Amino acid sequence: MNRIDNELKKLATFSATPNPSVTRIVFSKEDMDARAYFISLCEDIGLKVRVDAIGNTFARWEGSNPELAPVGTGSHIDAIPESGQYDGTVGVFGGLEAIRVLKESGYEPKRSIEVLLFTSEEPTRFGIGCLGSRMLSGQLTPKEAKKLIDFDGKSLEEVLKSADFTEDIASVKLPENYYNAFVELHIEQGPILEEEDLDIGIVTMIAAPSSLSVKLVGEGGHAGGVLMPKRKDAGCAAAEIMLAVESIAKNTTSENTVGTTGIFDIKPRAVNSIPKEAYLEIDLRDTFVETRNKALLDIQNKIEEVSNRRDIKSSVKLLNCDPPAICSDKLVDNVEAAAKELGYSYKKMISRAYHDSLFMAQICPTTMIFIPCRDGVSHRPDEYSSPEQIEKGVQTLALSLKALSE
Amino acid sequence: MNRIDNELKKLATFSATPNPSVTRIVFSKEDMDARAYFISLCEDIGLKVRVDAIGNTFARWEGSNPELAPVGTGSHIDAIPESGQYDGTVGVFGGLEAIRVLKESGYEPKRSIEVLLFTSEEPTRFGIGCLGSRMLSGQLTPKEAKKLIDFDGKSLEEVLKSADFTEDIASVKLPENYYNAFVELHIEQGPILEEEDLDIGIVTMIAAPSSLSVKLVGEGGHAGGVLMPKRKDAGCAAAEIMLAVESIAKNTTSENTVGTTGIFDIKPRAVNSIPKEAYLEIDLRDTFVETRNKALLDIQNKIEEVSNRRDIKSSVKLLNCDPPAICSDKLVDNVEAAAKELGYSYKKMISRAYHDSLFMAQICPTTMIFIPCRDGVSHRPDEYSSPEQIEKGVQTLALSLKALSE
Repeated sequence: MNRIDNELKKLATFSATPNPSVTRIVFSKEDMDARAYFISLCEDIGLKVRVDAIGNTFARWEGSNPELAPVGTGSHIDAIPESGQYDGTVGVFGGLEAIRVLKESGYEPKRSIEVLLFTSEEPTRFGIGCLGSRMLSGQLTPKEAKKLIDFDGKSLEEVLKSADFTEDIASVKLPENYYNAFVELHIEQGPILEEEDLDIGIVTMIAAPSSLSVKLVGEGGHAGGVLMPKRKDAGCAAAEIMLAVESIAKNTTSENTVGTTGIFDIKPRAVNSIPKEAYLEIDLRDTFVETRNKALLDIQNKIEEVSNRRDIKSSVKLLNCDPPAICSDKLVDNVEAAAKELGYSYKKMISRAYHDSLFMAQICPTTMIFIPCRDGVSHRPDEYSSPEQIEKGVQTLALSLKALSE
Repeated sequence: MNRIDNELKKLATFSATPNPSVTRIVFSKEDMDARAYFISLCEDIGLKVRVDAIGNTFARWEGSNPELAPVGTGSHIDAIPESGQYDGTVGVFGGLEAIRVLKESGYEPKRSIEVLLFTSEEPTRFGIGCLGSRMLSGQLTPKEAKKLIDFDGKSLEEVLKSADFTEDIASVKLPENYYNAFVELHIEQGPILEEEDLDIGIVTMIAAPSSLSVKLVGEGGHAGGVLMPKRKDAGCAAAEIMLAVESIAKNTTSENTVGTTGIFDIKPRAVNSIPKEAYLEIDLRDTFVETRNKALLDIQNKIEEVSNRRDIKSSVKLLNCDPPAICSDKLVDNVEAAAKELGYSYKKMISRAYHDSLFMAQICPTTMIFIPCRDGVSHRPDEYSSPEQIEKGVQTLALSLKALSE
């Protein structure tokens, strides 16, 4: 298994920030180089590679009956600023490694097996997560996608063009029943498996994520010149909202509600200037859609109350608000059988993080295989899963893909 | 008076952002171009120009007795991001215009008159305000100045070198008793003169400013993966501190206390990442040094309390903490006599904003002349004083300079 460790190490060098931190924004030079590296490895073992109009990459191991709907696996390789080396990447390179393991064992699948590299699972560039899998599954229409603007104000179309993707994105949506099944290998991004000393998590449900952007416009002015009672400080309004998000998420009826203000920008951003404008992005998720929606409403009410009280203009945009995904019982049983056969310890669990599987679950039976990560840490340079933990994930995935492709 | 209006309009075009907004960071191309423009205008009327090692510019109208200590006037032309056209600039170009008015009237001064353009009154680039006047007056030693680092991590020395200033900055400090008097013309940056329909403010005292930087380090992680009770969100800690600054400034015993958090940065800054780090810059000022210092202590105690409660590491740096300036009675009387003679309405007032005069007052008798600005607005693109208001300021300044140089 030195192979995948070395590949993940090499992959980490495609980063805009120095390792151990990894920054790989979709369609950046680092992302394009990493894609080329993945494709070259797939071609090395004879997989047929197709890249669609949005950059989703399909590496196909042709089955003996290529007419049958294939089995899919895969994940993403884009990485938010200054994050780690394992989120997503383990599912992409682990999918490839699973195929190599099966090939080397002499197995020949009946159904084709495809490893997918999804475009932009992270929302960093376009403010919306799972761009590739949303479009594949038809959850984001080409018309909606064409309205997306990146952090530099460039349209998706312009960005695609400059990355040499010139096909019509209307072609991205997969035909009905394209996949027979989809299984994604991923690090847990939480502490449960490590705490309970387990090898494998089998995902039965993916939490319902949502995100909001909030723009606040008050009044600026010189920090020395405007007395406190006359101020309309958009930054202080934003600070109140940030604390309200934290408090609302802490106080729902569900212990799985999490609320985060991950972006907090103020303008003009000078020590002696009163913040005239603030921009926030808020992430809220839960395993129960009702609890999440109630918390979302509480946050929106609080934004209104703060804005009115402080005489500040606010505009709120719901960036996404997706339903939770229920995983396929049949696939969960299949992964469980694989883990049992390999003698690995496991548990069935909920994914509180957001994955491409959330959208794949809309078009085919889906589940995920989790492996432990140190201290439950993710989206940080010290994110880590050991070679042994990764190997157990790959073996479980390989056995599941085998059973599903027979 | 079309002359100065046209000059201020032309000056505004030296900006990194499109007008009406003005962004002119010290030693940027825009700042260097604006300096060259000012110098060319001074040379047009025969003033002798000297530029010191930190870029402070002195344009001298030689008096009939050049041995006597000169009278100074002037201000700054650097502008914080997306601010306006009048802050500082009215004092520099108004000083030049006052000399032209006196020259045209046939007046010949006994003492020389110098118009100063001070380097970096704004703290934007080096995190400290009044860089030029601090060094002129010896309030910032060359040793301290050499430790300054700009927003890109470049040392003051490197930045000076790249702007072609290569002299030793130890030469910047003025000899003892260099100036006989200093008078700075400036927009009020507050609403009082406009509200009371007055032409001129005569400054008797400048508020005592101070500023703090706060760095907070908590724990990052995936916004979906880490449950609320396990978080150490540095952004939420920063939000609490920002609201405490507001509340402490509102609740002192002085009605002149103002507290502002003008910089609020979080890292890694992604919607689905828990803020691991936060960086704040806080500005606090008052006309009473005791009240201000008490508020400063309250803020520092609050930072400690929040950091302990949230288990977040904090480091606080006092960026500056200056004494208030008391203006010279003699000069205040002199400006009052000028305003009376010109038939302008006026009042004596306190400056709550920070000026180069704060430091000039440490080395010579000093006062300031304020003119109204629309809605009390400053540091914003809609900052505005009318040509008539500016003319009255210039006339008052000219008459004061005349009396002081006789």
